[in-house]
Amino acid sequence: MTFELKAIGKVSSPLTDLAAAPRQADEGAPAAWIEFEPSVLEGLRDLKAGDDVVVLTWLDRARRDLLSVHPRGDASRPPEGVFSTRAPHRPNPIGLHYTKVLGVDGARVHLASLEALDGTPVIDLKPALAADVAQR
Amino acid sequence: MTFELKAIGKVSSPLTDLAAAPRQADEGAPAAWIEFEPSVLEGLRDLKAGDDVVVLTWLDRARRDLLSVHPRGDASRPPEGVFSTRAPHRPNPIGLHYTKVLGVDGARVHLASLEALDGTPVIDLKPALAADVAQR
Repeated sequence: MTFELKAIGKVSSPLTDLAAAPRQADEGAPAAWIEFEPSVLEGLRDLKAGDDVVVLTWLDRARRDLLSVHPRGDASRPPEGVFSTRAPHRPNPIGLHYTKVLGVDGARVHLASLEALDGTPVIDLKPALAADVAQR
Repeated sequence: MTFELKAIGKVSSPLTDLAAAPRQADEGAPAAWIEFEPSVLEGLRDLKAGDDVVVLTWLDRARRDLLSVHPRGDASRPPEGVFSTRAPHRPNPIGLHYTKVLGVDGARVHLASLEALDGTPVIDLKPALAADVAQR
């Protein structure tokens, strides 16, 4: 069974080099913008500076045929099943990025940090809930 | 720009009634199973009871043409832009569900709670990170 995912925007970031990109947000991801498609502008109308959000991206440079990977790309560590890792390589390479909105300028949204390469397609943005982690 | 998402499993849950389903995990979502496709079994090999995970689902009964919704489906409240809500209705109806693994039985994974209807397609499963919320 397959579904059609639509890009609703793309990342605009100083991060252009895959090898130099941080692997997690707490390793120094830079501030970035999302440039949303004009067609989804209405959906952004209540978004504002200070909002805690989770951005979903489509990691278009990832491999979809891998089910085991070396943790953090370190070949000296034994491979792990991809569903126990946050590796981009997985059947559906969706990135999850928790961050904070710095500002909204029309269809452009400024984010405090984003560990995604320039040009990465954005597929969703949701408010982050404390329950995302605390209630599990 | 569009991408092809593949179902890698589906939810098996006592939740079959959309109207009665809880809107968030902290409102009483029941334990549930995910039945993964045999083709992704290798990816599950390091998953074990006690793991904190985030499940991504494809909310196949949601509407994709809405950019504003009444919060919590309450028509007495003014509509909000979908990217400021966790409503299932949005251009790419992806559900995020933080929960805990109770056990793994081959390609079947038992989860402590899941606010998703029986039969909902599963598109990814990742380890939850404290950084998902704390570091933003």
